Amino acid sequence: MARALILIDFQKGFDAPQWGARNNPAAETNAARLLSHWRTIKAPVIHIRHASRAAGSPLAKASAGFAFMDALAPIGDEVVFEKSVNSAFIGTGLEEHLRRRGHDGLIIAGLTTPHCVSTSTRMAGNLGFDVILAHDACAAFAGNMQMDWSDNPMPIDPELSHQIAIAHLHGEFAQAVSCAAILRGQS
Amino acid sequence: MARALILIDFQKGFDAPQWGARNNPAAETNAARLLSHWRTIKAPVIHIRHASRAAGSPLAKASAGFAFMDALAPIGDEVVFEKSVNSAFIGTGLEEHLRRRGHDGLIIAGLTTPHCVSTSTRMAGNLGFDVILAHDACAAFAGNMQMDWSDNPMPIDPELSHQIAIAHLHGEFAQAVSCAAILRGQS
Repeated sequence: MARALILIDFQKGFDAPQWGARNNPAAETNAARLLSHWRTIKAPVIHIRHASRAAGSPLAKASAGFAFMDALAPIGDEVVFEKSVNSAFIGTGLEEHLRRRGHDGLIIAGLTTPHCVSTSTRMAGNLGFDVILAHDACAAFAGNMQMDWSDNPMPIDPELSHQIAIAHLHGEFAQAVSCAAILRGQS
Repeated sequence: MARALILIDFQKGFDAPQWGARNNPAAETNAARLLSHWRTIKAPVIHIRHASRAAGSPLAKASAGFAFMDALAPIGDEVVFEKSVNSAFIGTGLEEHLRRRGHDGLIIAGLTTPHCVSTSTRMAGNLGFDVILAHDACAAFAGNMQMDWSDNPMPIDPELSHQIAIAHLHGEFAQAVSCAAILRGQS
């Protein structure tokens, strides 16, 4: 059985300037390539959407940014789960849905690498799912990282933040694989 | 009510050479300082212990490394939860225990920053607990980080790994605070 493709928080609100500089501008194009293939082979696709409870967030339910990005919006009977914390497994029916359908293998992609993607990937791995992290279909932002707690603060480049976030997941919670390699493995 | 102090995986098995170089050799001393104060004020202390399922792991239950480090071992009626994945909240009674006792505020410290500490802190925050991460009572190791998935691999220094892991948590899942500042706040 093909793995279930889980797309996390590909919402228009991430185009807002408040998130700051980002890495990997190809994340959405790479994710759209996976999505297109998953639709072609009629394999399961699950969309996760963030409904922020923070006042004024571009991802608040009342905001225009709550909408999915056009190229990554669900169609047909693709499943959508809504969350209001980082983990796609907390406060949603995602785990039960996956178990009921027998989807033991997952591919995870989305925004942002160090927050919602990392947290969801960690829980997926710890809950016993076999996870591939489509690392080049994820991206990190500079704007929500502060080092004010540190005696030795450094600027956190979004590419560094992304790379280290993936290194923390790879081999422990998931295998990090590029979209090109995932698609080669499917063909 | 004082926050519950949660100490994660301070076990002898982390002295094994296979974990590679580590940062912050003061992590255990800092944690012991918190523990001593928590015992003095008779505030709740919870120990988490990892029982690895990986054959030959220094943290396997049959290994001598499964034991708590002497300076951080539980005494009296301090609670111990055993886990076999990274999150202290998966496969344990930790969440139920905290809710039953009304422990909404937590302080988390332990090993390793990017794996079990980060995963447990993320889940604690997402489950609604108010979390302080005692960042200088945590440490990261070089040995379990590989960049073989990347086109642009870099060596991952344990201090960098630790700092970025904390930056990913701070302000999103927890507040990162030094042990000295935590103890100042308690006095």
